[in-house]
Amino acid sequence: MSRLGIIGTGLIGASVGLAARSREWEVFGYDSTAEGLRGALGCGAIDSAVEQPSAIYATCDVIVIAAHLNATLAEVAALRSRPLRDDQLVIDVASVKEPVARAGAGVGAFVPTHPMAGGEQRGPAAARSDLFRGRTWCYVPTADERRTAAARVFVAKLGAEPVAVDAAQHDRIVALTSHVPQLVAFAFAQCVNERAVQAPELVEALCGPVARELLRLGRSSQPMWDEIFAANAGAVRAELAHLEEVIDDRRIPG
Amino acid sequence: MSRLGIIGTGLIGASVGLAARSREWEVFGYDSTAEGLRGALGCGAIDSAVEQPSAIYATCDVIVIAAHLNATLAEVAALRSRPLRDDQLVIDVASVKEPVARAGAGVGAFVPTHPMAGGEQRGPAAARSDLFRGRTWCYVPTADERRTAAARVFVAKLGAEPVAVDAAQHDRIVALTSHVPQLVAFAFAQCVNERAVQAPELVEALCGPVARELLRLGRSSQPMWDEIFAANAGAVRAELAHLEEVIDDRRIPG
Repeated sequence: MSRLGIIGTGLIGASVGLAARSREWEVFGYDSTAEGLRGALGCGAIDSAVEQPSAIYATCDVIVIAAHLNATLAEVAALRSRPLRDDQLVIDVASVKEPVARAGAGVGAFVPTHPMAGGEQRGPAAARSDLFRGRTWCYVPTADERRTAAARVFVAKLGAEPVAVDAAQHDRIVALTSHVPQLVAFAFAQCVNERAVQAPELVEALCGPVARELLRLGRSSQPMWDEIFAANAGAVRAELAHLEEVIDDRRIPG
Repeated sequence: MSRLGIIGTGLIGASVGLAARSREWEVFGYDSTAEGLRGALGCGAIDSAVEQPSAIYATCDVIVIAAHLNATLAEVAALRSRPLRDDQLVIDVASVKEPVARAGAGVGAFVPTHPMAGGEQRGPAAARSDLFRGRTWCYVPTADERRTAAARVFVAKLGAEPVAVDAAQHDRIVALTSHVPQLVAFAFAQCVNERAVQAPELVEALCGPVARELLRLGRSSQPMWDEIFAANAGAVRAELAHLEEVIDDRRIPG
């Protein structure tokens, strides 16, 4: 039986745990909050909780860093001083790949990855073992071909579709396909809430399917996303400016 | 058995037909295209096709005008010269209510309505008998309380939740909750298509759930929406400008 370690047992980390446990992995979890760890134990996402990440690096074959972006960057940078074994694989799941790839450059065991899954829900209670089924899971190939192949095999085992991607190209594309829609969703939710002050039930009744989807997304964690926006600020600003240009060019008739 | 007439057998008209036929109505259909009528007969949305709207007004108890906005405005304006009976009810389903209410003002049989249902699909082939189940269906109360009540009862029979709304208030709210998201979706789809020229499969793989929803909406009929944008241009411009302000105020950190 292989041992999986999860550092950060939120929605993504706990979903990885559920998916792996259903495939006979033994799963160890660490979280910076006692609540996160209790939740992961409570929903069956991990077999055991540990008190320090070092306990995970000491025992696990595959380690998934599933923290918010800035915590991920710190954890990946610290990999340089960890005594990793030749048969260990470490991946992250952050939404921006170039800074993570830079932080982990030269650490043979580390392969940057990003599952295109998640949502506005948070914490282990929202975790699902099928969260990644059929979803794209990007990985950034490194000089270590064996670990790159292992990362690919691991995410495929969780039910995802592995897709190789260059870190810089990933960040440019998700600026448009993920980060800009999230920015629009936060702003749209704010506008709807302002309107809803006057006629809450009517505004709610007059929301169509896309408004509902944007409002759902607008309930995501602002602090979590601020780290992502900041790390990909150049590309996000450029894509947002272009979207606003295109909106204004498609002038409203009449 | 009551007789229902549908003028315009596209997605909405044909879905009304399917829902009504499953509730034992006899349904007559008219469409400006032979293809639309054949499709409605083919999918079982209507019992009989007629060659002129006049045949529908002559025989039916309830008439649903389910054309695009400009054709709806013409059809509603023409109600003034139609010899409608005291027991007849005519409703429309257009996405903008103030111009329609104005066109039908003083026509006792007419009640403006708007179901919050539809989608990017078009034509009777996409029709579903449960399209309106549980969805809001607005109606604009008129001076004719009996017809207003009849409109409310009719849309409830189709499975929808009737909600009374003032025409001007409706148009201001849907400018934000429906028309602006549609504008953003058209522009977003254009941006993604530009990006996709360079790396189509990768861009597709890196689209999350909201991007997919916006792209789905971006496949809607531009000519149909242009009529709606034009008719609600003032409110749409104001809401769009406010959304862009809010987006720019939520400055990207870093």
